Amino acid sequence: MSAVHLSSHEEYARLIDQYDTWMFDCDGVLWHGDRLIPGATEVLSLLRGKKKKVIFVTNNATKSRKSYKGKFDNLGVEASVVRPLFNTTAGGRFSNFTIRQDEIYGSAYAAAVYISSVMKLPKNKKVYVIGQSGLEEELRDEGISFVGGTDPADCTVSPFSLESFTLDPDVGAVVCGLDTAINYTKVSKAFQYLTRNPGCQFIATNEDSTYPAAHGLLPGAGAISAPLRYALGKDPIAIGKPAKTMLDCIKAKVHFDPKRTIMVGDRLNTDILFGQAGGVSTLLVLTGITLASEISGPNPSLIVPDYVTSSIADLAVVSK
Amino acid sequence: MSAVHLSSHEEYARLIDQYDTWMFDCDGVLWHGDRLIPGATEVLSLLRGKKKKVIFVTNNATKSRKSYKGKFDNLGVEASVVRPLFNTTAGGRFSNFTIRQDEIYGSAYAAAVYISSVMKLPKNKKVYVIGQSGLEEELRDEGISFVGGTDPADCTVSPFSLESFTLDPDVGAVVCGLDTAINYTKVSKAFQYLTRNPGCQFIATNEDSTYPAAHGLLPGAGAISAPLRYALGKDPIAIGKPAKTMLDCIKAKVHFDPKRTIMVGDRLNTDILFGQAGGVSTLLVLTGITLASEISGPNPSLIVPDYVTSSIADLAVVSK
Repeated sequence: MSAVHLSSHEEYARLIDQYDTWMFDCDGVLWHGDRLIPGATEVLSLLRGKKKKVIFVTNNATKSRKSYKGKFDNLGVEASVVRPLFNTTAGGRFSNFTIRQDEIYGSAYAAAVYISSVMKLPKNKKVYVIGQSGLEEELRDEGISFVGGTDPADCTVSPFSLESFTLDPDVGAVVCGLDTAINYTKVSKAFQYLTRNPGCQFIATNEDSTYPAAHGLLPGAGAISAPLRYALGKDPIAIGKPAKTMLDCIKAKVHFDPKRTIMVGDRLNTDILFGQAGGVSTLLVLTGITLASEISGPNPSLIVPDYVTSSIADLAVVSK
Repeated sequence: MSAVHLSSHEEYARLIDQYDTWMFDCDGVLWHGDRLIPGATEVLSLLRGKKKKVIFVTNNATKSRKSYKGKFDNLGVEASVVRPLFNTTAGGRFSNFTIRQDEIYGSAYAAAVYISSVMKLPKNKKVYVIGQSGLEEELRDEGISFVGGTDPADCTVSPFSLESFTLDPDVGAVVCGLDTAINYTKVSKAFQYLTRNPGCQFIATNEDSTYPAAHGLLPGAGAISAPLRYALGKDPIAIGKPAKTMLDCIKAKVHFDPKRTIMVGDRLNTDILFGQAGGVSTLLVLTGITLASEISGPNPSLIVPDYVTSSIADLAVVSK
């Protein structure tokens, strides 16, 4: 099976008719860093106008859903038409266009839900965090105690000594997301918990090798958990795309028919795999990581999306 | 083939007769952190007395050979009988027992020799260092220019921004050793050089997953290069044991007959593999990482040394 390359008005119109629930990756699909992809807003409005359910599925664990909503608002992404008279969302803005927090699924949120609802970490236990404030915020919202993270004592390049380290027996999990303050103290403490606290779980918000920053690629969350993975000789439980955990987290909150759902993304090994694992259809856009040559070149990827189009903006033709 | 478990006076005497060159790993064989293994000194003296060539082969890249010699001296390891009248070694001490720098082979030294002699990095090029002062010292001694390393500008947990980063086109290699000041800035800079400077080489001093610190295990040099390995999807050129590069480096300086050479170590996947790859005999001691059960338990390792003994001190029986 090869991917269907969409191009005509009819094909885009049929695609929109066919799916009720639209799951979007964000970076590389809707924007690049702080720059919106032209036409993305128009397409989201078009889907809203046709009463489609729209949700955003991001692996970025440095932001909580709340701070993600702030980013959407600042960029002017029109993701939810909430008219003043019908606005019953606590966090909603009284404007023609806004986005609700419950439309955003981030890997930090999914990790927190996994720890409280799937792993069922006892209330007297806590998590050692390698990650930033967005991850801490989601843990706090789920009522999970944690240490590490943005604690200044752990954000240091001073030498780490086991002699002055006290193992906290209540640490029952290490959760690891993108952390630009990563250092030897954090890795060493996490390593102690994972090797010396019986049953301590190793969780990664996501395993992206890189991420597209505003001025180029930088090492991603998978690179942050890599030292522990290597030292332990063991892979973490990964939460974000393509892992099923993220889908389970969405399913617990949103009702959707997989047959009438489509995942739109720019990465084959996260977004498209994620959609396929969840039994939904997939649309690859070429505005991000994946190049056209990976789909139709001489050595195509083994991961084949259902549909391909150059940009999400192509769907706007339907509204014209 | 299973390993020969040595126990009798005759077996130890025969072993000593059989080998002229004795290669020793240090940590877990001669000492644990700063504590000498009782009897190790006596055995080294015994081998010296019998005119054996003794060399030390360590993966620890945080120390230069010079600082390693300091550690030997402080611990009182008697590795070279240099009598005052015959002392022609520049660095030698006028005492009955001392060690020469040229008896020590560390992965930092071997990495520097590899860069200058095998890779032949042009003199106008430089290396980006993830590592400590011992590695910098060995690079300096080989006349290799470098940036990064212990430079305070790179030893920070402040956010890294590509916008304020200038790619140095002269960086032709990234060399990565154990670095307890590892952080996101170092990993990100190294990642830029390895992805944007054409032909830039990725070198690791060694790939040990952990190392035995004075009070327990800590993440090793392999954990420090792991983020780059993961972000790049590519393994580094590894220099230390078990890689052949370390042996080539020794061969360039020391003449030895592999048939009459033995490697003594405590790790199967570094020391013993290293000896086997180099075609020399191997002796496993059980004072370090490898447990007796890994050799003679129900699921023995596939890496089988020629000989096993509980401690290097067992050989001292020959002098009695």
